[in-house]
Amino acid sequence: MSLVIVGTVAFDTIETPFGKADMVVGGAALYGSIAASHYTDDVQLVSVIGEDFPQDELDYMAGRGINQEGLQLKKGEKSFYWSGRYHDNMNKRDTLVTDLNVLETFDPVLPDSYKESAYVMLGNLQPEVQMRVIEQMNKRPKLIIMDTMNFWMDIAMDSLKKTIAKIDVLTINDEEARQLSGEYSLVKAAAKILDMGPTYLVIKKGEHGALLFDKNNIFSAPALPLAEVYDPTGAGDTFAGAFAGYIAQTDDISFENLKRAIIHGSAMASFCVEKFSNQRLKELTTAELDARLQKFVDLTTFDLALAEVA
Amino acid sequence: MSLVIVGTVAFDTIETPFGKADMVVGGAALYGSIAASHYTDDVQLVSVIGEDFPQDELDYMAGRGINQEGLQLKKGEKSFYWSGRYHDNMNKRDTLVTDLNVLETFDPVLPDSYKESAYVMLGNLQPEVQMRVIEQMNKRPKLIIMDTMNFWMDIAMDSLKKTIAKIDVLTINDEEARQLSGEYSLVKAAAKILDMGPTYLVIKKGEHGALLFDKNNIFSAPALPLAEVYDPTGAGDTFAGAFAGYIAQTDDISFENLKRAIIHGSAMASFCVEKFSNQRLKELTTAELDARLQKFVDLTTFDLALAEVA
Repeated sequence: MSLVIVGTVAFDTIETPFGKADMVVGGAALYGSIAASHYTDDVQLVSVIGEDFPQDELDYMAGRGINQEGLQLKKGEKSFYWSGRYHDNMNKRDTLVTDLNVLETFDPVLPDSYKESAYVMLGNLQPEVQMRVIEQMNKRPKLIIMDTMNFWMDIAMDSLKKTIAKIDVLTINDEEARQLSGEYSLVKAAAKILDMGPTYLVIKKGEHGALLFDKNNIFSAPALPLAEVYDPTGAGDTFAGAFAGYIAQTDDISFENLKRAIIHGSAMASFCVEKFSNQRLKELTTAELDARLQKFVDLTTFDLALAEVA
Repeated sequence: MSLVIVGTVAFDTIETPFGKADMVVGGAALYGSIAASHYTDDVQLVSVIGEDFPQDELDYMAGRGINQEGLQLKKGEKSFYWSGRYHDNMNKRDTLVTDLNVLETFDPVLPDSYKESAYVMLGNLQPEVQMRVIEQMNKRPKLIIMDTMNFWMDIAMDSLKKTIAKIDVLTINDEEARQLSGEYSLVKAAAKILDMGPTYLVIKKGEHGALLFDKNNIFSAPALPLAEVYDPTGAGDTFAGAFAGYIAQTDDISFENLKRAIIHGSAMASFCVEKFSNQRLKELTTAELDARLQKFVDLTTFDLALAEVA
């Protein structure tokens, strides 16, 4: 099934203890659409770039079947640029530069060919911008997935809650779930957030995995323990893209299938961090992904058959 | 099979956002032995108390089959006492009082009836004290499990490493694994720690669950997401006691069985935090534990059957 992915397509400059990558491609919709393209050949990109964005990266994405009809190119302008430096433990980073450039005036316009899509993934953007995408759909998609961040909770909580009321799956991290709900317990936080509108909540916990909630069920997915994280940039976006792509491919929005989608998202994200930018995702083979998925099975499978309790 | 449990039997005064419990019973070996007694009727306690320790608590433990031949009673002295206050989020606590009392001169003496035990659980104590327990065993136990903490890494790393070299399963938290190994990645930390001697490493991550490592395998166990944690005191000790008790009951030290033991430990710990002190463990029924174990199955089970990756 078709999947609209909205978000940034950008340049990043990244410093990690392993090295520095200057002006490499990044952005939520770039990582997300490449990840999703492993699952569905009908990814519909909505984003904005400047004249500086490299044609070969656009060609690569086109080659993976990513529709760029909704990708605006602003002549004479520059693409969104972010620069950051990760601390030794990779769990914290400092933002060095944020140049909005083309993003400052970004008004997403959906081509008519996108407006009947069954699935929509709203990458982290101003909540009003995410809302304008929803409003342009001709019919209600089967599932709208939305990513956001604490920044919008700090400065735009009201419009954020209005957008959250319109979507089906919210993906945020544990601190954001606490901030959004005012509850420390993630179980209580999830109950409050689901009351705001979404059917499902995905709480991303980085190296501790992810939790999936609906009103009656909880699923706990592990993260793969990794010997080395080379560059965490884009891991969350890759997770979201594979998660959405898997759901679009299987066209099944049950809790059981969303569990599978989370494992696929986690597996794909575990590749993303192995190299800078989208480099590792570009090299990824089906056999590698299958082997990685099996690692998640091995990591979590137990059998209580022997249990006898006195 | 028989299981020797060594550690503190103590008084705690605990403040949480839910209330205060004054001079309630606690200690690693108290929580551990009660948890283990749900699995094996041959728990052999090694500890020390003062004359102030309540007889009815000793009677309760005896009633659960916990052998107290190795429990020293020091006339005219006071039991070990700890007092702490938990912050609102329950993940941090301040120690208000630590009165070693009888613990200051504690020299564990194993009764002859304990010296052939197949299983030994060394609760957190000075590493030299833990070593003296190992040295008193007549034959090498099948499995020696050891808990410790950052305090000993700060002030007694050499003797800690000597004791770690003699045991089979080390249980520590993620920060302690990083401190002990000097590695941030838990995969690298585990490799270094397993090189110090143990066959297995359990890394406890609190609300994020636990990881089990041997040289070739990793298992990731979730923690049960809880709406409310009433009092976290003793949860780690309860985990360790149920983990050791399950292994002693099943008499199986394979990686597969240690996975089951971790799920049992996690389930038992999830009860411990529901009330102050050992109150909830005292009320626990087999049916409740079975239902809680099923929750861990539901929480983690997924089936990739539908996976098709392009």
